[in-house]
Amino acid sequence: MRGVVMHAPGDVRVDDRDDPRIEQPTDAVIRLSATCVCGSDLWPYRGIDKVDEPVPMGHEYVGIVEEVGSGVTGIRPGQFVVGSFWASDNTCEICRAGYQSACVHRVPMGMFGSQAEYLRVPLADGTLVATPEVPPAELIPSYLAASDVLGTGWFAAVAAEAGPGKTVAVVGDGAVGLLAVLAARQLGAERIIAMSRHEPRQKLAREFGATDIVTERGDEGIARIKELTGGLGAHSVVEAVGTQESMMQAIHSARAGGNVGFVGVAHDVSLPGMDMFWSLVRLQGGPAPVRRFLPDLMRLIGDRTIDPGKVFDLALPLDRAAEGYRAMDERRAIKTLLRP
Amino acid sequence: MRGVVMHAPGDVRVDDRDDPRIEQPTDAVIRLSATCVCGSDLWPYRGIDKVDEPVPMGHEYVGIVEEVGSGVTGIRPGQFVVGSFWASDNTCEICRAGYQSACVHRVPMGMFGSQAEYLRVPLADGTLVATPEVPPAELIPSYLAASDVLGTGWFAAVAAEAGPGKTVAVVGDGAVGLLAVLAARQLGAERIIAMSRHEPRQKLAREFGATDIVTERGDEGIARIKELTGGLGAHSVVEAVGTQESMMQAIHSARAGGNVGFVGVAHDVSLPGMDMFWSLVRLQGGPAPVRRFLPDLMRLIGDRTIDPGKVFDLALPLDRAAEGYRAMDERRAIKTLLRP
Repeated sequence: MRGVVMHAPGDVRVDDRDDPRIEQPTDAVIRLSATCVCGSDLWPYRGIDKVDEPVPMGHEYVGIVEEVGSGVTGIRPGQFVVGSFWASDNTCEICRAGYQSACVHRVPMGMFGSQAEYLRVPLADGTLVATPEVPPAELIPSYLAASDVLGTGWFAAVAAEAGPGKTVAVVGDGAVGLLAVLAARQLGAERIIAMSRHEPRQKLAREFGATDIVTERGDEGIARIKELTGGLGAHSVVEAVGTQESMMQAIHSARAGGNVGFVGVAHDVSLPGMDMFWSLVRLQGGPAPVRRFLPDLMRLIGDRTIDPGKVFDLALPLDRAAEGYRAMDERRAIKTLLRP
Repeated sequence: MRGVVMHAPGDVRVDDRDDPRIEQPTDAVIRLSATCVCGSDLWPYRGIDKVDEPVPMGHEYVGIVEEVGSGVTGIRPGQFVVGSFWASDNTCEICRAGYQSACVHRVPMGMFGSQAEYLRVPLADGTLVATPEVPPAELIPSYLAASDVLGTGWFAAVAAEAGPGKTVAVVGDGAVGLLAVLAARQLGAERIIAMSRHEPRQKLAREFGATDIVTERGDEGIARIKELTGGLGAHSVVEAVGTQESMMQAIHSARAGGNVGFVGVAHDVSLPGMDMFWSLVRLQGGPAPVRRFLPDLMRLIGDRTIDPGKVFDLALPLDRAAEGYRAMDERRAIKTLLRP
């Protein structure tokens, strides 16, 4: 099959790869309807994460089940399915508590490379959620968003305790930050402040439900949030970048007793204990347990309540993946969808 | 009046100080029934916090109201009252959300020095809680504990979401850690693991409700907690020390999706972003909003459901304060009560 392989930073190619096949009785193999490039794929692309050898890329996926192992009972060939970027059994104590991204049997889907024609999905019964019927083509981008960016933004908003009566600030205007805006709106937040200095992203933030835009960053951004919240800070802050500056901006934008949900992969971040102590904020983040939210998110997509697929502002055939990476790297695209 | 003054690290004296008087209409002046030495008083005593000039000491207090300002309506002379180490209006938005230690008008009581005969309490209506009648002498130590260490341990247990069905681990066997054990028990935790290597403190932890004792620290302590929790970690972890080692021990002792409540004053602590990210724990801490819990805690003390005063294993007349500091510094005493 054809699949995206990163050979070195900046060097993304579509190569011939072995067709995946059932290896464990709990596996499924799916034929991808669509896949995409993640903000986290840019870490190795930019040489921040090392690339020692050619590595298959991608961990977001939707598709049609092609084949299932003998132990799979809940999923059958022909179904349209969505899964998270972690395969999980969905039955262990950690999964049952809603933290499937830390499932005791978790498998990172990134190791299989979903930017391809076919994908093996371990723990298929726990990992995959099927739609009642194969959805129309126009909904595919939104289901694909549920696989990671929507679920991640949703988790961040939940971790930040966005809800009725709350003012929510979102640090980061990538796809995850924008979808955290959408999540905060769905969760009933009263006021949603998107922090962005990019006009097209501000526009999408407004479409998703942002009531205010703050263009300032760092200490000025914090001051602006305080100004908008009677000097107290936001009740809920989402951090969706993963840098020292964005983390500190998020923590200090929250009021005492407020909540910060962080989903930016915290590269080289170090949180000063005294800042955490005096801020009195509650902090939670990490790899989002997308599987927890998938059934609800898929229902909201299926009944067209939400349209998270709007974050894909570039769609290319799989063979032009390199172009899609480049557009995201140069911030010309928010997120690139690839059609195998 | 007589009051404790720290002149330099290790140099604690009982000096003549000016009698406090009503300065604002919202003030009260109380005659102290008892006061005590806090673990945090040891930071300057040990020279870790600077002592630039002689400074009055103490921020924990119970006593009889002597006089109130013209604006005080809820408290009257003759009442026995308990207050927190932060004066707070108890009416601002932050107070109403339960974070009185971050009240927009908060005043740190430490600046007045409660290790003395009398104490001025600002924002008396918001800060002080009175008992229905003056309590018998044997309950005084427990009410005094409510002023800080009990309320702080309680907040830590609440922040760690201790409750029915939960396994709670407590890092730190000082008065706050021990009272977090008591709080976890009252909150209905199923299993409470006290981390302590000091036999008398282990004994008190058991009296307060600990079901298990772990003597290992650092990585070995974490491994032991995992071993006791099916490899997953505790649901709830209280951190009551304030060092890098204790914070990391707490975070890594919690399971994914678990909660860490930290109340140790986090000196020179730096939390690696990636540890926070991958742990998937929810972290909250800081100066405890003791005022939130005071009415409930005072009721539990009044009806003799709890006996937090047991943490005072040394009681001295105020004039012998220096001896009380020394005993705590050398870990011969858990906590010293001083009788003015």
